[in-house]
Amino acid sequence: GHPLFRDMTTTIFEKMSMRARELGAINLGQGFPDGPGPHEVLEAAADALLTKSNQYPPMAGLPELRSAIAAHYARHQGLDLIPEEVIVTSGATEALAASLMALVGPGDEVLVLAPLYDAYVPLIERAGGVAKVITLTPPEWRITEDALKAAASERTRLILLNNPTNPTAVVMRDGELALLARFCAARDLIAICDEVWEHVTFDGIGHRPLMAFPGMRERTVKIGSAGKIFSVTGWKVGWMCAAPALAALLGRAHQFLTFTTAPNLQWAVAEGLGKPAEWFAQMRADYQESRDRLAEGLEAAGYVVQPSAATWFLSIDLPASGIDMDDVTFCERIVEEAGVAAIPVSAFYPNGTVTSLVRLCFSKADGVIDAAVDRLARFR
Amino acid sequence: GHPLFRDMTTTIFEKMSMRARELGAINLGQGFPDGPGPHEVLEAAADALLTKSNQYPPMAGLPELRSAIAAHYARHQGLDLIPEEVIVTSGATEALAASLMALVGPGDEVLVLAPLYDAYVPLIERAGGVAKVITLTPPEWRITEDALKAAASERTRLILLNNPTNPTAVVMRDGELALLARFCAARDLIAICDEVWEHVTFDGIGHRPLMAFPGMRERTVKIGSAGKIFSVTGWKVGWMCAAPALAALLGRAHQFLTFTTAPNLQWAVAEGLGKPAEWFAQMRADYQESRDRLAEGLEAAGYVVQPSAATWFLSIDLPASGIDMDDVTFCERIVEEAGVAAIPVSAFYPNGTVTSLVRLCFSKADGVIDAAVDRLARFR
Ligand SMILES: CSCCC(=O)C(=O)O
Ligand SMILES: CSCCC(=O)C(=O)O
Repeated sequence: GHPLFRDMTTTIFEKMSMRARELGAINLGQGFPDGPGPHEVLEAAADALLTKSNQYPPMAGLPELRSAIAAHYARHQGLDLIPEEVIVTSGATEALAASLMALVGPGDEVLVLAPLYDAYVPLIERAGGVAKVITLTPPEWRITEDALKAAASERTRLILLNNPTNPTAVVMRDGELALLARFCAARDLIAICDEVWEHVTFDGIGHRPLMAFPGMRERTVKIGSAGKIFSVTGWKVGWMCAAPALAALLGRAHQFLTFTTAPNLQWAVAEGLGKPAEWFAQMRADYQESRDRLAEGLEAAGYVVQPSAATWFLSIDLPASGIDMDDVTFCERIVEEAGVAAIPVSAFYPNGTVTSLVRLCFSKADGVIDAAVDRLARFR
Repeated sequence: GHPLFRDMTTTIFEKMSMRARELGAINLGQGFPDGPGPHEVLEAAADALLTKSNQYPPMAGLPELRSAIAAHYARHQGLDLIPEEVIVTSGATEALAASLMALVGPGDEVLVLAPLYDAYVPLIERAGGVAKVITLTPPEWRITEDALKAAASERTRLILLNNPTNPTAVVMRDGELALLARFCAARDLIAICDEVWEHVTFDGIGHRPLMAFPGMRERTVKIGSAGKIFSVTGWKVGWMCAAPALAALLGRAHQFLTFTTAPNLQWAVAEGLGKPAEWFAQMRADYQESRDRLAEGLEAAGYVVQPSAATWFLSIDLPASGIDMDDVTFCERIVEEAGVAAIPVSAFYPNGTVTSLVRLCFSKADGVIDAAVDRLARFR
């Protein structure tokens, strides 16, 4: 049969946040910062509420925001998008849903790389498609040509990627991106690139969009998120960028999923995207400091931590830390006994291949990180 | 084959608004008010941006808003919803998409009444279902048992209704609602009730939710919209209400379509829903005045206007007005020659059955209504 959403459970992020609220635990599970977000951006949104129209903006977004997104990617990633190639969505989740509902037909196969975000497979299946999972493993999480070839078939139409990657905190290497581009071009595949973490990279590592690789300009859907860029995860302002022929299809789906997105938030994001390069560098430096604080604290307490090159996450390696529990058990125990919520990485695998890692979110105030480290140190 | 969104065209509302912008026409097409919306509600939203969290609220909405919606329906419609039966969505469009994606499986038949909102059929088909269209006709647009029976089959699972109805501006009569309830109970159907116009009724006519009719409490999804209630169509805050077993399924779809909705707008809507009954009465009275202004102006200019008991819309009857054009031609001509955008009612029929009516939106300032009437008078 054709899988329906009814067979799915509630997303792990919501479940762990509910648990944290119930138990009064420190929530390092669901990924969100605990700061207020950039003041000028919040002010711009408040101002637009009171001074600009609160009626339907154009379906594809305010022209000013579409232009700001195109200009932002020209400046930061060397892309040559025009505003008509940008569609504003109600968060990156809607962009994913719209892309898949627009592009996946019954029986179409979609390649995905595990670990993967928990919305991917249900959306592919609800669109009538079949997810073909390529399983990546620690510590390198490397994508190989053999794995791509083994997963692909005559029915493969798309590949859906997340780069930088949640939860592995990896930025895909140039060689992997070049391989993916060659593979997509050779097989005439469309790539849906969930690049919501594009600005949150560390140690001087930059993000390179797959769309910029040879042969990809016309076959890529690039998805972004203002919530991640401006640390306001509740805003639910995202976008999808694609060449005109693809963008036309994406717009069809978007018009029937949400139609449009609150204009005051769109004005504020347009303003934010024009911030100077130093602002983005400072944001990265701040999160890098938080990453280091959490990593060092955990290491001092005897935990072995995986490297984190991007995102708001790092993972504890349980066996390497001398902890003889699987990730789900460990997460259950620390939320109950230590008062710290985390996410078991097995939740990012359709069939739980990797059970040795536990993801923690470090986009938090220093005091919160220190308190969590303290609790986890005492738990040992 | 399984219809995809790619076969659909751009929604008529967006198309006509684009045309109005290009031509500088008065836009009485797409339904939105031209006022700013209630000041205290806008202030509450601006305030929440600066004083409350902008991070992910719970997936089903802020508890405060879910409670406010339940309390609002207890007060205004005598419903006994609990907050857990309410899921906040990114507009009523997302509520429709989530309901259909949650409840429609491949081959399931869904009854719909034409004229109908243009998202209904594409969403049903994208979910794998088959829309069975019951065609209603002017001037009564009456639903009959014979028509329901003729459209239903062994495979019918749902009925999707819009009451009060856009574009006919009809409030379904108690006899029709009782018939629908008996029919749903007898055939074990779920009713998805798009009741976004519930508060915008005129001449003392009240809205009765289908959920309140015998046998319907457990088999109804009731959809509402803050954009319509508070005249802020761009906010895209909606909700869907259903008994727990149904609500659980709706939540599964919602989590993968948008996940959640901007918390500052949720706070403001929660505040707005607590306004006293007089506030809603005044809102209705104001729109009723606008309706009368447009109707009287058009009648003085020789147009014959259909009654409007609800919504922001009324329709001109072209043949009765002595105009020998179909609705599409008339709309093309008035946007080009008179500088007034309107919506041809045939766009609300999957197969254009009724071509004699043109819908105009009257939720506009007096001066805008007068100018449009003037232009349409000169066009004759
Ligand atoms: C939609 S809640 C999930 C947030 C997130 O990106 C994560 O925690 O991985
Ligand atoms: C989503 S745009 C359509 C607005 C509306 O309800 C209408 O004009 O009928």
